[in-house]
Amino acid sequence: MSDKKQEIAWGSRDSKKDVETGEKLAPKFDANGLIPVVTTDYDTGEVVMQAFMNEEALKKTLEIGEAVYWSRSRSELWHKGATSGFTQKVIEMRVDCDQDCIWIRVRTKGGANCHVGYRSCFYRSVSLGPEVPAEQLGALQLSENDKVFDPNEVYGSGPVK
Amino acid sequence: MSDKKQEIAWGSRDSKKDVETGEKLAPKFDANGLIPVVTTDYDTGEVVMQAFMNEEALKKTLEIGEAVYWSRSRSELWHKGATSGFTQKVIEMRVDCDQDCIWIRVRTKGGANCHVGYRSCFYRSVSLGPEVPAEQLGALQLSENDKVFDPNEVYGSGPVK
Repeated sequence: MSDKKQEIAWGSRDSKKDVETGEKLAPKFDANGLIPVVTTDYDTGEVVMQAFMNEEALKKTLEIGEAVYWSRSRSELWHKGATSGFTQKVIEMRVDCDQDCIWIRVRTKGGANCHVGYRSCFYRSVSLGPEVPAEQLGALQLSENDKVFDPNEVYGSGPVK
Repeated sequence: MSDKKQEIAWGSRDSKKDVETGEKLAPKFDANGLIPVVTTDYDTGEVVMQAFMNEEALKKTLEIGEAVYWSRSRSELWHKGATSGFTQKVIEMRVDCDQDCIWIRVRTKGGANCHVGYRSCFYRSVSLGPEVPAEQLGALQLSENDKVFDPNEVYGSGPVK
């Protein structure tokens, strides 16, 4: 990878106006140096995962146009798909009003985003609302019927995430 | 509000299998007692905001079927729309594989979700990718042309979020 990313300079966060109306990305990283990232499928709109980037991951993502996260469990840069082949091409990136969250819209090679084998990590829905009996609140139902891949074939039996 | 939520018991997080295939919501709150929440518009699929819930906020959301977050800036429960009227009816809730993130699909009364006045907090897109000149990486463009409301009329001139 080149050092093109080294040239990226963030915008100003000096005022609320700068942050909400500025013309250059001015991301706010939290106390751990991370910013949350929401990843949706560009074509279906489905939320496929939520993860975090640190400053280096965000700069690499901007540079190469593929999703690079920070793995909190492994404490390392995580170029999504490096192991599984399911890389995420970033078609569009958005930032929110106070610039403390990133939204990326991706097309994923192979169509699977979750290590469990599903298209999306959010493969279960949750019962809620005033019409639901109290004992049923929080019950989970599968929203995806078929796995895209068998995790054992792709990752072997080792720990993944 | 009734105490129906007090009856909600979480599922087990004793094993990876429990978490990934269990039939009861078993949310993982972080060191600050919070879980990130991604909120999308049910009809358009657009990500409209990202926020956090604590345990009480999540239980209230389950109970009343409208989004209740935890405001980190005000350190209080935040029934979205209580000030602006733009309440979010939760049509569907999803949880991810390791149950450390919630996705809610909402219909928002009035259609605006961002305190700046836009439909979505993510009203700006970010230039990225290998075809973009280095000095343009991170440049922001407006993705929404028109505000849904004038924040000064809805909130007055006081601080909002």
